[in-house]
Amino acid sequence: MRTELKQLLQAVQNQTLSVEEALLKLKLTPYADLDFARVDLHRQIRQGVPEVIYGAGKTAWQIAEIIRVMRDHGQERILVTRLTEETAAAVAKTCPLRYDPVSRLGILGDFPSPDGIGTIVVATGGTSDIPVAEEAAVTAESFGNSVLRLYDVGVAGLHRLLSHLEEIMTASVIIAIAGMEGALPSVIGGLADCPVIAVPTSVGYGASFQGLSALLAMLNSCASGVSVVNIDNGFGAGFLASRINHMEAKK
Amino acid sequence: MRTELKQLLQAVQNQTLSVEEALLKLKLTPYADLDFARVDLHRQIRQGVPEVIYGAGKTAWQIAEIIRVMRDHGQERILVTRLTEETAAAVAKTCPLRYDPVSRLGILGDFPSPDGIGTIVVATGGTSDIPVAEEAAVTAESFGNSVLRLYDVGVAGLHRLLSHLEEIMTASVIIAIAGMEGALPSVIGGLADCPVIAVPTSVGYGASFQGLSALLAMLNSCASGVSVVNIDNGFGAGFLASRINHMEAKK
Amino acid sequence: MRTELKQLLQAVQNQTLSVEEALLKLKLTPYADLDFARVDLHRQIRQGVPEVIYGAGKTAWQIAEIIRVMRDHGQERILVTRLTEETAAAVAKTCPLRYDPVSRLGILGDFPSPDGIGTIVVATGGTSDIPVAEEAAVTAESFGNSVLRLYDVGVAGLHRLLSHLEEIMTASVIIAIAGMEGALPSVIGGLADCPVIAVPTSVGYGASFQGLSALLAMLNSCASGVSVVNIDNGFGAGFLASRINHMEAKK
Amino acid sequence: MRTELKQLLQAVQNQTLSVEEALLKLKLTPYADLDFARVDLHRQIRQGVPEVIYGAGKTAWQIAEIIRVMRDHGQERILVTRLTEETAAAVAKTCPLRYDPVSRLGILGDFPSPDGIGTIVVATGGTSDIPVAEEAAVTAESFGNSVLRLYDVGVAGLHRLLSHLEEIMTASVIIAIAGMEGALPSVIGGLADCPVIAVPTSVGYGASFQGLSALLAMLNSCASGVSVVNIDNGFGAGFLASRINHMEAKK
Amino acid sequence: MRTELKQLLQAVQNQTLSVEEALLKLKLTPYADLDFARVDLHRQIRQGVPEVIYGAGKTAWQIAEIIRVMRDHGQERILVTRLTEETAAAVAKTCPLRYDPVSRLGILGDFPSPDGIGTIVVATGGTSDIPVAEEAAVTAESFGNSVLRLYDVGVAGLHRLLSHLEEIMTASVIIAIAGMEGALPSVIGGLADCPVIAVPTSVGYGASFQGLSALLAMLNSCASGVSVVNIDNGFGAGFLASRINHMEAKK
Amino acid sequence: MRTELKQLLQAVQNQTLSVEEALLKLKLTPYADLDFARVDLHRQIRQGVPEVIYGAGKTAWQIAEIIRVMRDHGQERILVTRLTEETAAAVAKTCPLRYDPVSRLGILGDFPSPDGIGTIVVATGGTSDIPVAEEAAVTAESFGNSVLRLYDVGVAGLHRLLSHLEEIMTASVIIAIAGMEGALPSVIGGLADCPVIAVPTSVGYGASFQGLSALLAMLNSCASGVSVVNIDNGFGAGFLASRINHMEAKK
Amino acid sequence: MRTELKQLLQAVQNQTLSVEEALLKLKLTPYADLDFARVDLHRQIRQGVPEVIYGAGKTAWQIAEIIRVMRDHGQERILVTRLTEETAAAVAKTCPLRYDPVSRLGILGDFPSPDGIGTIVVATGGTSDIPVAEEAAVTAESFGNSVLRLYDVGVAGLHRLLSHLEEIMTASVIIAIAGMEGALPSVIGGLADCPVIAVPTSVGYGASFQGLSALLAMLNSCASGVSVVNIDNGFGAGFLASRINHMEAKK
Amino acid sequence: MRTELKQLLQAVQNQTLSVEEALLKLKLTPYADLDFARVDLHRQIRQGVPEVIYGAGKTAWQIAEIIRVMRDHGQERILVTRLTEETAAAVAKTCPLRYDPVSRLGILGDFPSPDGIGTIVVATGGTSDIPVAEEAAVTAESFGNSVLRLYDVGVAGLHRLLSHLEEIMTASVIIAIAGMEGALPSVIGGLADCPVIAVPTSVGYGASFQGLSALLAMLNSCASGVSVVNIDNGFGAGFLASRINHMEAKK
Repeated sequence: MRTELKQLLQAVQNQTLSVEEALLKLKLTPYADLDFARVDLHRQIRQGVPEVIYGAGKTAWQIAEIIRVMRDHGQERILVTRLTEETAAAVAKTCPLRYDPVSRLGILGDFPSPDGIGTIVVATGGTSDIPVAEEAAVTAESFGNSVLRLYDVGVAGLHRLLSHLEEIMTASVIIAIAGMEGALPSVIGGLADCPVIAVPTSVGYGASFQGLSALLAMLNSCASGVSVVNIDNGFGAGFLASRINHMEAKK
Repeated sequence: MRTELKQLLQAVQNQTLSVEEALLKLKLTPYADLDFARVDLHRQIRQGVPEVIYGAGKTAWQIAEIIRVMRDHGQERILVTRLTEETAAAVAKTCPLRYDPVSRLGILGDFPSPDGIGTIVVATGGTSDIPVAEEAAVTAESFGNSVLRLYDVGVAGLHRLLSHLEEIMTASVIIAIAGMEGALPSVIGGLADCPVIAVPTSVGYGASFQGLSALLAMLNSCASGVSVVNIDNGFGAGFLASRINHMEAKK
Repeated sequence: MRTELKQLLQAVQNQTLSVEEALLKLKLTPYADLDFARVDLHRQIRQGVPEVIYGAGKTAWQIAEIIRVMRDHGQERILVTRLTEETAAAVAKTCPLRYDPVSRLGILGDFPSPDGIGTIVVATGGTSDIPVAEEAAVTAESFGNSVLRLYDVGVAGLHRLLSHLEEIMTASVIIAIAGMEGALPSVIGGLADCPVIAVPTSVGYGASFQGLSALLAMLNSCASGVSVVNIDNGFGAGFLASRINHMEAKK
Repeated sequence: MRTELKQLLQAVQNQTLSVEEALLKLKLTPYADLDFARVDLHRQIRQGVPEVIYGAGKTAWQIAEIIRVMRDHGQERILVTRLTEETAAAVAKTCPLRYDPVSRLGILGDFPSPDGIGTIVVATGGTSDIPVAEEAAVTAESFGNSVLRLYDVGVAGLHRLLSHLEEIMTASVIIAIAGMEGALPSVIGGLADCPVIAVPTSVGYGASFQGLSALLAMLNSCASGVSVVNIDNGFGAGFLASRINHMEAKK
Repeated sequence: MRTELKQLLQAVQNQTLSVEEALLKLKLTPYADLDFARVDLHRQIRQGVPEVIYGAGKTAWQIAEIIRVMRDHGQERILVTRLTEETAAAVAKTCPLRYDPVSRLGILGDFPSPDGIGTIVVATGGTSDIPVAEEAAVTAESFGNSVLRLYDVGVAGLHRLLSHLEEIMTASVIIAIAGMEGALPSVIGGLADCPVIAVPTSVGYGASFQGLSALLAMLNSCASGVSVVNIDNGFGAGFLASRINHMEAKK
Repeated sequence: MRTELKQLLQAVQNQTLSVEEALLKLKLTPYADLDFARVDLHRQIRQGVPEVIYGAGKTAWQIAEIIRVMRDHGQERILVTRLTEETAAAVAKTCPLRYDPVSRLGILGDFPSPDGIGTIVVATGGTSDIPVAEEAAVTAESFGNSVLRLYDVGVAGLHRLLSHLEEIMTASVIIAIAGMEGALPSVIGGLADCPVIAVPTSVGYGASFQGLSALLAMLNSCASGVSVVNIDNGFGAGFLASRINHMEAKK
Repeated sequence: MRTELKQLLQAVQNQTLSVEEALLKLKLTPYADLDFARVDLHRQIRQGVPEVIYGAGKTAWQIAEIIRVMRDHGQERILVTRLTEETAAAVAKTCPLRYDPVSRLGILGDFPSPDGIGTIVVATGGTSDIPVAEEAAVTAESFGNSVLRLYDVGVAGLHRLLSHLEEIMTASVIIAIAGMEGALPSVIGGLADCPVIAVPTSVGYGASFQGLSALLAMLNSCASGVSVVNIDNGFGAGFLASRINHMEAKK
Repeated sequence: MRTELKQLLQAVQNQTLSVEEALLKLKLTPYADLDFARVDLHRQIRQGVPEVIYGAGKTAWQIAEIIRVMRDHGQERILVTRLTEETAAAVAKTCPLRYDPVSRLGILGDFPSPDGIGTIVVATGGTSDIPVAEEAAVTAESFGNSVLRLYDVGVAGLHRLLSHLEEIMTASVIIAIAGMEGALPSVIGGLADCPVIAVPTSVGYGASFQGLSALLAMLNSCASGVSVVNIDNGFGAGFLASRINHMEAKK
């Protein structure tokens, strides 16, 4: 951004750009204004990744419009999260959207080849956590990561987890997903030497309070190297894991 | 109680007891009324254990009075819980009370020899949980149990716990005590085949919310055979463990 | 486990087992990996009881698959909890599953004869708590316990409870189930001399907050010998009661 | 009020009162404005009882001033609630205030003879609830009620309560005070046929959450005829009990 | 109860009753055991009012059975609360049940003539609170009270309330019902000189948290003489109001 | 009000009005009593704006009746909030109600020309917040304000907001609407020099707890000049913004 | 800001400013960087008011340093909020700070003459709310407003409030401050036709939960025109009231 | 671990190790058992970093002992967190502990030279967040990271943050620390393209609920790439940031 500004100022100084034009340029919004949404078209430049459409609370028409604008601006890979089957079907009439019913993701374009530092392990405490895990795994794959799934390795049957010690100890990033008591990230965090992203899920009943129990447990993890995202936020975990797995020298 | 009632009625029938006397006997309160407290003197008969004095919120004078009445009625072993050092010192002027500053227990009389089914294991996640653990351990000992302490075996360093697999797998009852994420009971519950009593502690900060985090985690344990007592309730866990460890045939 | 390990090491020493084979055996997962679930096949050995399938959040196909694997490994008695009528019907097409609509349990195989220390009493505060109570009672029966049901004996009509004093005072374990104010375990805990497992239910409205009120009350019970499981967790209470009712000498 | 207004209007009509004077009268505030407090001097007329001074958060000087104004207006019986020992001592220098350290009440004037419908029973679950109970009991006595104290009759030792069945069944109003699981009002409510005022106390620890547990339990009481006041609000319970105990025909 | 016991003992002494028979009589439960419910048949004697059936969570068949038993024992007036229209229709096939869709009450038998001390005022803050108010009003009427309804007199339009000052100041008991900020009981409590029963409702949205906001406000009312029942508990308020309105001398 | 009272008293003094008539007038309620609702007809006089009908929890018939009474009293502009499509259709059969499905507002009459101090800016963090924003915007327009909509300008894409700096810095009042982390009002509050009304929305999932997260964030805003209304309360924000935008000299 | 930017660009175009200098200027932070604080020196320009120092959590030395920098930049009127007496005394050694122990405000410089639209009324429910009220009142005065204090006019004694109807109905802005049930803003909001800023206070005990009760009540106010600031945030209310009271035409 | 196990098994096979010795070795705990603590001596090997001592809830003697054992095992760099000044002084008598009163860290040994991928930026919303920030910064430095501090750049004065855009956009990892509304991580997360670790602090009052407000806001951040640690957990953030900043290829 500093660079752009400098160029702009030099253009003004060189008088190849009038003050009025410069002012105009500075106010040019780097997004497409759809009235109901401002589609961020600079994010790719600013942050290196495409915009992801948060599907919840948007109509099929709104989503289709946002996709249309993105594709008009050359965006080929697009992810839509938290998409219902009905909305996906309606959107798919306007563009080649693929829908994954488990992760509830809508996908446009092919995934890039994995080019991260290592493998991202996605582990769940139980079978019911799989939808959240798939949201994380497919998100990570869509950003160019190799993903290894370890499902149903909850701490109440420790041998299930320990038989995968090697995968855990060689992972680049681990996404540990669990509902109920949310203990998985603590146990994994004590075994692994990589960043662990904990995802509480709303799986459970009674005193799980829709994931609050797992959330609090994960925030209080006595294992170091663990951080937490929102309840059921598979996308957020997959996105962050990808970012960590693509760390580059910035000295 | 049924027996006592039957004997009473038979005595009335046999006319060895008048109606008035029977009525009086029935109304005789099986406790000593101290105005500020009703000391339960029948609990030993009714439930097989001495009354325990909950020390919090009572003055030294009140505690001393309750002890005096109990001893007058032949009670030799008395436990006072949640006793401050100051109150203990004041009470100790009126009776041979011993005070344990770690567990905050006041004790009168000698402990019985262990006569339970097996060994009660008291495990903690960390060093800071020791006061609660000692309250549990000493309580269990005072009721005639053999206790094995396994302190600081939290799940973030699993090898510390796993190196005690044998003690865990041969325990009669396990008291699993932890603050923060409260994951210890889930892991132990998955390894052991005996009842596990989970005690959340108020150890932690921030989102531990004074033990709420550990409490919720423990209630949501996906390991079977785990039940939970109140936050920091070492006494309750020790008492219940003793009761389980003294199960007898009741077919 | 220690024994198995010792035998393994001796086999290596005796050169009846190569290092590679030993390593392989040690890594052999004692569960069947179904991709979406890791079915624990050693639990019977490790903890003396069959695995129970938590039905909530699993599809009929997933449950049927898990049952198939278990039966392939010789498991005859299987319990499926929190099963909807629809899912049960679908699963029943693949195996001889019986469904109990009150407790929402799916059952395979016959129940063993009761062989516990004594009788487990299952008491409820009201009629609406019966589904949770039946989950507890049938679970306990499926593990070989004699169960006595005392339903609708809430504390607001104390004579209903007191007329069963004898059953309460001779029980081996009591499961006390209540919603709303959750006072039943405290009253029973003061009368009985056996372990009391308190189960809060989500029965109630307004300030019951889906069972939170009963849960907190039970955790704060001033009766000793009471511990608590999750809201509506009839299975957990039945399982733990059975474990306590099958205590054996482990000195 | 209606009467006063009618008289005022008639006086205007009779021209014994000018419009300006009437207007003035109507605006005459029926309280003494102390700048920091508006002392209600009409409450005796409007509601039949003297104003009570809520002592918390007021300085000794403020309390003394309010008392001075009240006494200037002929108020003889004054109650100050939630008074610390220090503040009471300071206030006592300016007026003949008596201080009761258990209930933390400051009192001026003699109590009236009991003239209510019957006896108000004040029952507590434990010894630690006594300060709240005394606040209720002394408040009720100060408003002309006969009070019977039944302390430490918690539900975990039911015989303590049942031995007072007669007092409970003949009471006019019962104030049931308990911390922890707050079960006392439910049990009493099931036995008594009079209004029961439940007072949760902050007695307890851990999951009692400073009285929240008892509060929720009492609000969910399945016994009819029970209503609840704020945590530790002995004054409110005593005041309301007196009002109920002084019900008169109002057809 | 004492009297019955005395007579029993005298009969034993007189040998007109054997010990076995006495024992049997003492154990005779004063309720009808329907397996799923214990219908209290002594409550009329013990507390002067008929049992009320809590309809939520009960099947039509269960309710019909309970009604059948009650009517078999001579109960003529029966109230069923929280009844859905469907269940009511099913029950009505087995007995002459009338259903009131606003209050969701099912009613058997005629209401007694009002014989209370005075009039019970039922006031609501808004129109949406009317279902709860009707539950309170009809309950009170069914127990023999004269009821005056003041609906939609919320504090944000004070003149609506003040124009009914006379009714408020002459009421025997007032039931003040409000959702949202729950301020009505405080304002009424400051105007009236009778007991005020506050009923929070779940009317509102957002930070009303299903009635929590109104509940907390009412518990904190700075007006004396106010007590609170559970959220939406119109029945409880009507029952208690009737009890207060039927106070008799019990010196 | 004082003026009316003075005129009334003068009329009594002048004997052009009898005491009884005066009394009657004073008691004449300035609202129409519809039994289920008290329609405030003086609010226009008292507060300068028409009554708004809160549609939630009211039947179509009730709403139609209230509208009828209002129109009978000359009210031309009427707003009905939180109206479902079905209810709106039913009401529209009885009067010329227009329905806006996005804001869920029902509208009668034309909107006045904008006559406020300046422009009200309505900004949202995301697309999903638009229904709440439209409720605010249309409400403000219905009270005579010029409204500028800035939708989807959330803080995670700051340039979207900053490109509207001029509108923000010249607004008369800003309504900042956001769910999830609720940061928009803080950022806007730091940029603007006008009152900012923050509206938390229930948009989000997991730890947003139906808007609690945004609500707490907004209450804790470290930007000065920000105040908060209830979750999803677009109407309240629009109403208050209009009131502020119509401030007039009142020295 | 736009203007400054335009001038800058023109200077570059005119070559009176080099690109490097322009770049430097654009990066010049409009605040003084004190390492531990960035003192905002442009706020006066940007928002028309001086920066206010939030005193809590800052050392006396830090506050003194911030004041020193502000004064060095010509700031004459400075407000320090939430200042303890000790810290104030220490700061006062370095500058002419005046300290008001009731509002806990530290003040430098004289207050401007009131130049707002009208009078700001600051009303409290009780005496204990006065510290928060004074923080609001003095803050408003320091920003050039005329303030009228109405203390202890809580809704439980409505006549105290109604006798000030005239002040309420002629106010420009009203700050309504209350703890406990927090009903004052609703009642005032129904009477007034100006913006009402509600301030919940932590005054109360038990179920007031440190102001949560009042906060929720105020957020749910059914009176329109009410918005809420944080618990005990007298400063925020005074600041916002001043901003509203200084509204000017911005068409 | 796998390697060690293989070597062990080979040694048994080679008969250079007896079965008994192997068994013993396998049970050799890789930690020093201090009775009250099990000091993890393998963590350096297992996870590449020294053990850190959590100082809260440990006595000076316990901490000194743990340090002694660590140093005996060759550990030179040791960090003690949450250390009070008193405890630090006591510990410092037994070893060359340096104490930093702002971060409350105790430190032994020199810090390694920074060898991470890039710079870790530690940003805070306000001055009061500095202690948490210093805990994070010093922790990161102690693990060999270059740290840049940006304190008091809260979102309510956006220009303070924007003037550091370059540092933010070139950071390797950012730790964003804020109390109150906790908006800083969302704004930074929208600007940066590196992982952002959000740390809520307990700074604030009223509805900040000791950091809950900031915690919830951060969990709900609509900026991608943000994860959250416990309230006030500066150490956890610093540790995780270091781990991310030391990512290496693990394909």
